[in-house]
Amino acid sequence: MQIAIYVYDRLTALDAIGPYEVLSRLPEAELVFVGAQAGPVRTDTGRLSLVADAARDEVTAPDIVLVPGGPGQTDLMGDEGLRAWLRAVDATSTWTTSVCTGSLLLADAGLLDGRRATSHWLALEQLGELGAVPVAERVVEDGKVVTAAGVSAGIDMSLTLAGRIAGDVVAQGIQLGIEYDPQPPFTAGSPARAPADLVELLRAASRFVLEGDGRAPAA
Amino acid sequence: MQIAIYVYDRLTALDAIGPYEVLSRLPEAELVFVGAQAGPVRTDTGRLSLVADAARDEVTAPDIVLVPGGPGQTDLMGDEGLRAWLRAVDATSTWTTSVCTGSLLLADAGLLDGRRATSHWLALEQLGELGAVPVAERVVEDGKVVTAAGVSAGIDMSLTLAGRIAGDVVAQGIQLGIEYDPQPPFTAGSPARAPADLVELLRAASRFVLEGDGRAPAA
Repeated sequence: MQIAIYVYDRLTALDAIGPYEVLSRLPEAELVFVGAQAGPVRTDTGRLSLVADAARDEVTAPDIVLVPGGPGQTDLMGDEGLRAWLRAVDATSTWTTSVCTGSLLLADAGLLDGRRATSHWLALEQLGELGAVPVAERVVEDGKVVTAAGVSAGIDMSLTLAGRIAGDVVAQGIQLGIEYDPQPPFTAGSPARAPADLVELLRAASRFVLEGDGRAPAA
Repeated sequence: MQIAIYVYDRLTALDAIGPYEVLSRLPEAELVFVGAQAGPVRTDTGRLSLVADAARDEVTAPDIVLVPGGPGQTDLMGDEGLRAWLRAVDATSTWTTSVCTGSLLLADAGLLDGRRATSHWLALEQLGELGAVPVAERVVEDGKVVTAAGVSAGIDMSLTLAGRIAGDVVAQGIQLGIEYDPQPPFTAGSPARAPADLVELLRAASRFVLEGDGRAPAA
């Protein structure tokens, strides 16, 4: 079972690494990080390089494809090479998946038309504009397409997927192995639960990002 | 504020990337991945390379040091170069931290003698044998030393630390940004909550790992 995680410059690392940590532990998983070319990509913070072991041209029929999000997603909208690869791998995949704004890239490739899907809470409106039916849930399944909300939601999505693929006991074994018994010290992880002024603050900041030049504000 | 995350071959990626995703977003954070040498390390699954941007000799006085865990930890027990670096950076750090079996490396350097600390649930006994006072909690603070339980616990630990450093509002903003509103599909994330036979299965497998040649079983 081949699992391809697509990486690119200015992705958000945890979008990719959460699901990697779960899915790579599935029996017979052959997980590969894929990029436009093989080689390192730099994450959104500018503080880390992850290495794509394969170019996308070398990975043509993965069983699972996963597209993470991050500020670099904006640079890839309309990228014909990526669109063609996503359409090709989706044609034969068992599961087509995303985390955070990775769903915007799936939508940009035309893979979410009329499908229920999710994204980072700040990107749900845009997801709808791209033809998907946006759903404000942490993990959304529509047939073989499984999408996760922002960043850390990829862990929940991939455990859900692990259960579908290998059964609940295997998924629970992975959960126990990575000791995923979350106990956040605050309850601010979703716009429904966070203080309203904080939600507005992030919304204002994101407006700058999403409606500006598409790049994150300078640090 | 310099934050050094130490990486090495056969580390568990999420141990490092969870805290990276939180701590790199602190105001004025200058986060750096550090290795024995600069360059790529290969994670425990053999499926990913992360790049250390700096050699440890170049990073001599970080404000925060974080040591992740993973099967490769066993190779580093008794490593005099690492011991010396950890002792040196701990002497001037504001916070000395670990995730998962990273605490065994802190203990091996003599930094946890008589201190309350935690680790992956399968490593708590060994942590006690190394001189620490093992505590089966998700995040354990003892003065400036903050340790996390297994793998995913690093997210909770780093959010706790973010609150201490920059205040609760900033930490909550980071939590909302990474949409950390966990909803695991199963409740098997700790030995107290997982099915007993699953706990025993993992305990038996780990006995092979911990009492064998120290390397993970072949995939």
